[in-house]
Amino acid sequence: MTRFLPMLLLVMVGYCSSGWAANTTASTKTSDAPQQWQLQSPDQALTLALALDGQAFSYQLSFKGRPVLKPSRLGMAFKDQPALQANLKVLKVTPRTNNTSWQPVWGQRATIVDHFAELVVDAIETGTNPRQLQLIFRAYNDGIAFRYHLPAQPHLNKVVISNELTEFAFARNFKAWWIPAYRNQRFEYQYLNSALSSIDVAHTPLTLTDEGIAIAVHEAALVNYASMTLRNITDNHITLTADLVPWANGDKVYTQTPFSTPWRTIQVADSEVALLDSDLILNLNEPPAKDVELGYIKPGKYIGIWWEMHIGQKDWSPGPLQGATTERALQYIDFASQHDIDGVLVEGWNQGWEGEWWQRPPTFSFTKAVAGFDINKVAAYAKAKGVRLIGHHETAAGVQYYEQQMDEAFKLYQQLGVNSVKMGYVGTRVDQNQWHHGQYMVEHFGRVTETAARYGVMVNAHETVKDTGLSRTYPNLMTRECVRGMEYNGGSPDSGNLPNHTVIIPFTRGLAGPIDFTPGIFNFNYQQHRPNNRVPSTLANQLALYVTLYSPLQMAADLPENYQGHPAFAFIDAVPTDWQQSKALQGKIGEYLVIARQDKHSANWYLGATSNEQARELSVKLDFLKAGQSYQMISYLDAPDAHWETKPMAYQITKSVVKAGSTIELKLQPGGGAAIEFIPIQ
Amino acid sequence: MTRFLPMLLLVMVGYCSSGWAANTTASTKTSDAPQQWQLQSPDQALTLALALDGQAFSYQLSFKGRPVLKPSRLGMAFKDQPALQANLKVLKVTPRTNNTSWQPVWGQRATIVDHFAELVVDAIETGTNPRQLQLIFRAYNDGIAFRYHLPAQPHLNKVVISNELTEFAFARNFKAWWIPAYRNQRFEYQYLNSALSSIDVAHTPLTLTDEGIAIAVHEAALVNYASMTLRNITDNHITLTADLVPWANGDKVYTQTPFSTPWRTIQVADSEVALLDSDLILNLNEPPAKDVELGYIKPGKYIGIWWEMHIGQKDWSPGPLQGATTERALQYIDFASQHDIDGVLVEGWNQGWEGEWWQRPPTFSFTKAVAGFDINKVAAYAKAKGVRLIGHHETAAGVQYYEQQMDEAFKLYQQLGVNSVKMGYVGTRVDQNQWHHGQYMVEHFGRVTETAARYGVMVNAHETVKDTGLSRTYPNLMTRECVRGMEYNGGSPDSGNLPNHTVIIPFTRGLAGPIDFTPGIFNFNYQQHRPNNRVPSTLANQLALYVTLYSPLQMAADLPENYQGHPAFAFIDAVPTDWQQSKALQGKIGEYLVIARQDKHSANWYLGATSNEQARELSVKLDFLKAGQSYQMISYLDAPDAHWETKPMAYQITKSVVKAGSTIELKLQPGGGAAIEFIPIQ
Repeated sequence: MTRFLPMLLLVMVGYCSSGWAANTTASTKTSDAPQQWQLQSPDQALTLALALDGQAFSYQLSFKGRPVLKPSRLGMAFKDQPALQANLKVLKVTPRTNNTSWQPVWGQRATIVDHFAELVVDAIETGTNPRQLQLIFRAYNDGIAFRYHLPAQPHLNKVVISNELTEFAFARNFKAWWIPAYRNQRFEYQYLNSALSSIDVAHTPLTLTDEGIAIAVHEAALVNYASMTLRNITDNHITLTADLVPWANGDKVYTQTPFSTPWRTIQVADSEVALLDSDLILNLNEPPAKDVELGYIKPGKYIGIWWEMHIGQKDWSPGPLQGATTERALQYIDFASQHDIDGVLVEGWNQGWEGEWWQRPPTFSFTKAVAGFDINKVAAYAKAKGVRLIGHHETAAGVQYYEQQMDEAFKLYQQLGVNSVKMGYVGTRVDQNQWHHGQYMVEHFGRVTETAARYGVMVNAHETVKDTGLSRTYPNLMTRECVRGMEYNGGSPDSGNLPNHTVIIPFTRGLAGPIDFTPGIFNFNYQQHRPNNRVPSTLANQLALYVTLYSPLQMAADLPENYQGHPAFAFIDAVPTDWQQSKALQGKIGEYLVIARQDKHSANWYLGATSNEQARELSVKLDFLKAGQSYQMISYLDAPDAHWETKPMAYQITKSVVKAGSTIELKLQPGGGAAIEFIPIQ
Repeated sequence: MTRFLPMLLLVMVGYCSSGWAANTTASTKTSDAPQQWQLQSPDQALTLALALDGQAFSYQLSFKGRPVLKPSRLGMAFKDQPALQANLKVLKVTPRTNNTSWQPVWGQRATIVDHFAELVVDAIETGTNPRQLQLIFRAYNDGIAFRYHLPAQPHLNKVVISNELTEFAFARNFKAWWIPAYRNQRFEYQYLNSALSSIDVAHTPLTLTDEGIAIAVHEAALVNYASMTLRNITDNHITLTADLVPWANGDKVYTQTPFSTPWRTIQVADSEVALLDSDLILNLNEPPAKDVELGYIKPGKYIGIWWEMHIGQKDWSPGPLQGATTERALQYIDFASQHDIDGVLVEGWNQGWEGEWWQRPPTFSFTKAVAGFDINKVAAYAKAKGVRLIGHHETAAGVQYYEQQMDEAFKLYQQLGVNSVKMGYVGTRVDQNQWHHGQYMVEHFGRVTETAARYGVMVNAHETVKDTGLSRTYPNLMTRECVRGMEYNGGSPDSGNLPNHTVIIPFTRGLAGPIDFTPGIFNFNYQQHRPNNRVPSTLANQLALYVTLYSPLQMAADLPENYQGHPAFAFIDAVPTDWQQSKALQGKIGEYLVIARQDKHSANWYLGATSNEQARELSVKLDFLKAGQSYQMISYLDAPDAHWETKPMAYQITKSVVKAGSTIELKLQPGGGAAIEFIPIQ
C-alpha cells in the first residue's frame, strides 16, 4: 500500500488574507527525497497535496481535515514509448490565484465567480532525451481540478495515448451513485446505488456520498481527447483509475504536443444538495472567442411532434401513422404562438425514416422533406406566427454520412430561419464500431458545434458525448440528452423509469450540464399502445421538473391537445429557461429535491420540489426572496389523493401572499412535486 | 412483443375446499390453437399460467391479481442439435397437491410445512425423432417453482446444454438488489440497488421490490448442473434470461437423460420482510437418504485463530507472525471450554502457507501440520476440554489438487475427532480457468460434501457454489460464506463494508441459506495495521447479527482476550444456533431488520434488531411470546451516544420483565442494533 511520506519541502499555496503562505522556491534537485506541495481552496476547506516521491507524482485531497483521496498516482502511458510517470524532477512551481467573475450568455446564474488558487508544476524526466510534463492544479471552494499539459518539446511530438494513469484512491468506501460505462445504451441507464467498491467501470459524473460529505468526479473541457470513465482495476477495492474510452482499435487518443488533457474534476461539498450550486465545470472551460456572433443564441421553450410517436399514436416512418405532416406542424405552431413557447420541433420531417431505420446504415436526407410535410410552408407559417421551427437531424449514429451533408443541412436551416437543431445518434456504436464517447465522436461533435455556430444554429444533441462545460466556450451548445429521459416512459415497451429517477439525475448527470429530459407530461392515460408504461410522477411533479432539471432549451413534451385549456399549463408558460440566480435548497439523492431560481429578466422566483415514490412533507424557508418584498405565490401542488400510479393528474392551484423569510409547508405525494411561482407585488 | 392469447383450454389446478377445479383432460391434439393451464398457490394468492402457443411453452405469474411476470419463454438449447422449445405438443397434464410437513435436522424452524399444488406437463415434439420434455410446476404460498425434466428417451441421451432458454419477463421495472455475476471476487460484493432495467448480469438470489410486493428469483437443488445467473440480454429492458455459468470452453452443462434441472424459484410476498420466513428453497430439495448417519451433525458456535490475521496482528504464513501455534490454540480451547462455544478453528495450521499462497498453484498439505503447531496435542487438549477442533482446508481454488488429498484429509480429521471443516477456494478461477459457479465446481463440491459425510464431518465452505437448499438432502452441509463477510472490515486494505450491508444481505444472499458471516467483533480498535478499516456497526449490532444472520455454525469472530470478562459476551454464550421457530417481524432492505427466534431446546426467545447508518426507533410488539407467560428480558442495547464510527463500543445491558403482547421501544443508533434474550419466568 502506498503511504504518504513526511514532507521535506512544503510549498503552501492558498488564499489567505496575508497573501501567500510559506515560500514558492522552485526545486531543481534530482534527489529521491520526497517533495511535497500544498494547495488550498480560497475558503481553506479543501487541501490538495502533491508529492514527488521516488521521482513519481501523486496527489491527495482532504476536505475540512477529512481525507477524500489517499495518495493517488499521476501519469500517462503511450503506445510505442515508455510511460511518462517515473524519473521525474520538478523544474518550476508557479502559484497563482484568481478572483474574478464572468457572465455566461445563459445559465443557472447571471454571474459566475471564478475564484481559485492554482499551482503549475513544470517537470522533466531525469534521463536522456527527457520529456517535459506540466501539471496544473486548481483549488476552488467547490472542488479541485487538475490537468496534464504536454508542451511542445524536442523529444515528444505525435503520440498515441494508450492509457491515462490518473488514479482516484478514495479514502473510504463511499456510497456511490453511478451508471455503468461500455454498455449499448450509452448514458441511458437508471443509476445504480452501491458501495464504491462494487463499481466495475462507471461513467462520470460519479457521485459519492457519506455523512457530511458529497463528492463528484467528472471532467471539464473535453476537447480532442477521449472521455474519461472510472474503472475499478483492483476489483472490489476503492481506487478508481481513469479509463479513456478507446477507438475501435484500442488506442485511446491520437494527439501531438503541445496539448492539454481535459481537467479532471473533484467537486466536494458538505452535502449532496450543495453540489448542485457548483460552477466548477464551467469555470474550467475557456470563454468564447471574442469575435464570435452570439446574438442568435436564446434560451427558450419548445414543443414538438415527438411524444405522440413515443406513445405509439404516431410513427416516424412515412405512411398512415406518419407524425410529421404539414397540418400537424401547423397545429403545433398555432399552440406555440398562443403561449410562451419559442420553437416547434418536427421529428420525422425529412426523408429516410422508412421501417427500422436504426437497424441499417443511415438513409436520411438532411435537406429533403418527406411527402406530406411542406417544410417551406411550415417554416413560413412559423415565421408569420413568430415561432421558430426547430431542426432535427437523426443520424442513426452514422457520423461520416452526416458530415457529408452537414454543411448543406445547416445552410438549409439558416435559410428557413431555423436557429436550433436537435440531433440524435441512435445506435449502439458510431459508424459501426466506434464508441459514442471516444475521441472519434468528441472530434465529430466538435465539428458539429462549430458548423452549427457558423450558420447561427443552437445545438440540442441526443446520444452524444457527455457535457463537460464546453457551452461556456461554445454558447450555442445549449443542452443535450445523455440521460435516460422521458422517452423511456413512452417508447420503451416495458422499462419505464422509476419514480426516484428524477431525484437522482440532478445530483449525478445534472452536474455535467443542462439536461434535455423533456418534462411536462399532462396526460397520463396513454396505455392504449403502451399497456405497461406510465410516467412515474404526478402532474405537479412534471411542472416542478422545469425548475429542478436545468436546461436552457426546455421541452413541453406532451401534445398540444393535452395542454389546451389546461390551467396547469400556466406554469409552463411562466417558467423561464434562463436564470439570474439558482439555489439548491434541500435534497437527498434519490429521495427529494427543492430548488429555487430567479428569472434572469424579472424579479420573479420559481421553486420546484420533487419527491421519489415516498410521500413527504417539507418545510421551505423563503429566505431566497428579496427582504421586505411581498410576493404573490402561485402554487401548483399535488392534490391530497394524488399518487403517481393511481391518480397522477390530481393537482391543485393555490394563491397566497408571502414575504421573504416566511416558511411554507409542502406536502408531496408519492411521485409528487410542487411548482411555485413568486411574483413581486408592486 | 409477446402477447398472451385468449385461452382455448383451461385446466385449473389449485387447492380449494371443493377439490380440483375444472377438468384435467389430457390434450393430445396437435393444433396450433393456444392451450393454457393454470396453477394456484394453496392460499390462491399466486396464479401461474402456462401456455402452449404456436407449439412453444410460456408461463406467466401474478400475485393477488397483480402481474409479476408477463409471458416468459421456456426451453433449452443444445450443442449439435436443435433447441427443445418449438414444435411441442402436450401428452399429459398431471395435477397433484401435497400438504405435509417435515423436520429438518437443524434449521430456522423445527417443523417445515410443505404445502403446494403441482402440475406435471408431459410434452413431446411433433416432428420425426421426437424428443420428450416434462415441465414440473409447483405453487406454494411463498412462491412458485418449476424445473425441466428430460426423461430417458430414444432420441435424446448424452447432451451438451448450450443455453437454458428460461425467461423471466418481469411485468414492471422493479427496484432490484443484486450483485454482478462473472466478477473476480465471486459473491463478495456489496449489493447494488438499481432499477431492474440497469442490471447486466446478476447472481441469484435476485431480490426485487415495489410498493406492496417483494420478489426473489433463485434456484433450488443445484446438482450436476451449472449455476443460473440472470442476464439482461435485451440490455436496458426488464426481461432477464437464465444464463448458466459455463465451463472454460463455453459449454454450459454436460449431462445425460434422464435428468432434471434445478428448480427455478420465484418467491413472492407482500413485503420484503415476509420473504425471510419462506421455506420454498428447502422444500424443493429432497429429504436425506434414509440410511445415512446424521448423529454427528450438531449446530453450534465456534471461535478461531482467524481475525487476528485479518487485522494484521498475525499471519497465515509460518514465521514470527504465525497465527497457528500450539500455545495460541490452547488459549482458544481454554476460552471455548469456559463458554458455550463448541469448536475452535485454526487457520494456517497446515503446511503450505508460505508467502503469497493465493498467487501460485496450491502447495498445501491437508494432513501435515506446520512447525510450531502440534495438531495431536491440540486435538487431545480440545478433547479433554470437551471442545471440538474445527478443520481447515484452504485450497487456493486448486480443486484437482485438493481432491487428490481429500480422502486422507477427512480421514485424519475423523481420527482426531474433528467433526467440522471450514474449506476455502480463494482465487479468481478454480483450477486456473473454471468459474466458481459452473458445473465443474458444482460437481466437485458435491464430492466434497459426500466425502465429508462419509467421514462424519460437517461442512462450512467459503468461496464455493451458492446455497440452493441442498442441506436438506445433505444435512452435513451446514453453512457457507458466499457473501462479502466480516473479513472485509479487517483484511481488505481499504474497502470495508458499509453499515447498510448487514441489513441488505438477509434479504438477498440470506434467502439462499445460512451465512457464515462471522459476527461478534467487540474490539473496534484495530487500526494499528488497518488504518482505513473499521467494523461498520456498534457492539449491540454485532450481537444482534447472531439472530438476524442465520447460520447453524456461528462464529464468535473476535479474539478471546477481547471477549474475556466482557459482560456482553453473555449474549453470545446464550444465543442458540438451532431454532424451534423464527419470525421476521419488521424490516426494509438496506434500512433495518427485526427478527425473533425461539430456541429449539428451550422456551427462550431471542430478538435481533439492526439498523443501517441511520439511527431509528422501532416499536416491537412481543406477540411472538407465549400468551400469559412472563419473561425476563435481558437487553443488549446501544448506549444513547453509540455510533458505529465514533463510539461503537458504547452499549448497555438492561433487565426487565415482559409479557406476550407488550410493546417495547428500541432505539437503534447509527450502525446500531439491539440483541434481546427472553427467558420464561417459572
